[in-house]
Amino acid sequence: MSGTAGQVIRCKAAVAWEAGKPLVIEEVEVAPPQKNEVRLKILFTSLCHTDVYFWEAKGQTPLFPRIFGHEAGGIVESVGEGVTDLQPGDHVLPVFTGECKECPHCHSEESNMFSIKGKPIYHFVGTSTFSEYTVTHVGCVAKINPAAPLDKVCVLSCGISTGFGATVNVAKPKKGQTVAIFGLGAVGLAAAEGARVSGASRIIGVDLNPSRFNEAKKFGVTEFVNPKDYDKPVQQVIAEMTNGGVDRSVECTGSVQAMISAFECVHDGWGVAVLVGVPNKDDAFKTHPMNLLNERTLKGTFFGNYKPRSDLPSVVEKYMNKEMELEKFITHAVPFSEINKAFDLMLSGESIRCIIRMDG
Amino acid sequence: MSGTAGQVIRCKAAVAWEAGKPLVIEEVEVAPPQKNEVRLKILFTSLCHTDVYFWEAKGQTPLFPRIFGHEAGGIVESVGEGVTDLQPGDHVLPVFTGECKECPHCHSEESNMFSIKGKPIYHFVGTSTFSEYTVTHVGCVAKINPAAPLDKVCVLSCGISTGFGATVNVAKPKKGQTVAIFGLGAVGLAAAEGARVSGASRIIGVDLNPSRFNEAKKFGVTEFVNPKDYDKPVQQVIAEMTNGGVDRSVECTGSVQAMISAFECVHDGWGVAVLVGVPNKDDAFKTHPMNLLNERTLKGTFFGNYKPRSDLPSVVEKYMNKEMELEKFITHAVPFSEINKAFDLMLSGESIRCIIRMDG
Repeated sequence: MSGTAGQVIRCKAAVAWEAGKPLVIEEVEVAPPQKNEVRLKILFTSLCHTDVYFWEAKGQTPLFPRIFGHEAGGIVESVGEGVTDLQPGDHVLPVFTGECKECPHCHSEESNMFSIKGKPIYHFVGTSTFSEYTVTHVGCVAKINPAAPLDKVCVLSCGISTGFGATVNVAKPKKGQTVAIFGLGAVGLAAAEGARVSGASRIIGVDLNPSRFNEAKKFGVTEFVNPKDYDKPVQQVIAEMTNGGVDRSVECTGSVQAMISAFECVHDGWGVAVLVGVPNKDDAFKTHPMNLLNERTLKGTFFGNYKPRSDLPSVVEKYMNKEMELEKFITHAVPFSEINKAFDLMLSGESIRCIIRMDG
Repeated sequence: MSGTAGQVIRCKAAVAWEAGKPLVIEEVEVAPPQKNEVRLKILFTSLCHTDVYFWEAKGQTPLFPRIFGHEAGGIVESVGEGVTDLQPGDHVLPVFTGECKECPHCHSEESNMFSIKGKPIYHFVGTSTFSEYTVTHVGCVAKINPAAPLDKVCVLSCGISTGFGATVNVAKPKKGQTVAIFGLGAVGLAAAEGARVSGASRIIGVDLNPSRFNEAKKFGVTEFVNPKDYDKPVQQVIAEMTNGGVDRSVECTGSVQAMISAFECVHDGWGVAVLVGVPNKDDAFKTHPMNLLNERTLKGTFFGNYKPRSDLPSVVEKYMNKEMELEKFITHAVPFSEINKAFDLMLSGESIRCIIRMDG
């Protein structure tokens, strides 16, 4: 155990005090890990659109003050009672699980692991990695190969695995099939990468931002459709391009209209649509049931259907064995003191992934 | 070729002149089969709820006068040009394919095979078996074992295969899993039978008509839920009965509300809901997309995903080998002259399947 084990750690964290306002680097107190918890020293974290989404709090109930961040890599600092399969020094990726506000873990007092001058700060999806130290449940930590560079593989702890897994584990395109990807952010590009690795013959990227298209070619996207360029629904455009519909589609925007389009653009008889994007809380997915009866399949996935602790170490190995590229996803890096720049880069659409160095 | 080959056949058919009005047995002219068509002598037909649904024409565009019927067994009378894999005397089950009003076959003039005094009568889903003779496209005819009793296996040409296949081919419950069946008509009971054969541990039948429950036990249904007995949504009732939801559900009513309940009652993480019932034309399937993202799967199926010509002969063999029971589905029989009784029996909920003997 380290010298800090069992003690409250005072360290820096980026606190979101209000929706949409720049984060403020504050000194926080991080409680020692309780039963079945571990405390991590975060070395690298990256900004995922889900952080921005909950920070903007436009489609969700606002919950502030809060420490965001969930895509990260770190080292175990100390472990709580009952933790036997992790020990200080282990290299780990923290992983969000399920929906924070509903799980017993998040409802429990133990999860209020942060405070400022004794006043608790809300955490985020069980991880809250925008902090030098954080406490998570042992179930939210995947132990990985210590040789893996944490400044690269940290992106596997959410977005890249989410998109890649949505394609390879859920949509499962067969070699030669056609795939449509809705949304060409990091998750969508990772979904495209999954389609490329699966041997898809055509990968149709759909995005409202035409500047995404050039970048997307690196990820296997062969054709581009901007819904704004047509006066008919994009599902109809895609059906006309593909003789009735694509074999698979993966929705990575969270827009309910894109979800409906992604579903309705798959071919009847065998098409499979996979929903990945996080919807607004009042959204309704709406389609004519005949679109389902025509033997289309609609599925959703969290975290690409990977079981974090069992599967993530092997995804890291895929990168180590060069079966999967991560470098092309990482377009920017900033020191922790400039974390708000990462938000600006994402909001302007400039970055795919911006790594935040906690030592900076 | 029989003596009638190439000739117009005058025979009896049950004509629906108006929505919801009793059928009238009329003498009709049945044209000889054209290219890629066959003319069948129907020996037994049964009434399926889809006939009643289009006859009532409440949720669909009315199309009259029309000869309904699509669940039947018969013998090939003659074949048209280009038909090489069927010959007069073959025992066959006619099979509906796809959605009648949209397929090129149904749009084509060739398909107006019936007339009364030269005036065409609309056919129904490519089969129109409420007639002593009918003409179908060769693609809508499955050749079966001539030893199979047509008065039993005729029910395999639509409803029973539809329900059974929805479970065994699409929902695919694993041994020991829980299954909910919405709607305990013939299709739902066949879906339950599929769950029973698959080794389901619990089969929860859902129906608004409590009189269905007793009969349903013969088909493996272990528990009953009548949505009218609760003041909360039936999906919630089922989730509470099953520690979070059933593993599989099969919707066999066509009510869009039942479709939504069937989807929302499956367990997150792995639950699969299969839609079978035919919806009204203006229905919208509506759910919160989070229900999908929680790793539920929603699929639809036509005809239990059986490929009629390739697969139906082997389903008939299942019956011949006693791997599947059909007798318990057949609760009534009437002569053709009393076909309207079959409608009454179905509308009152008394019958599961009523066989109509064409020689009576």
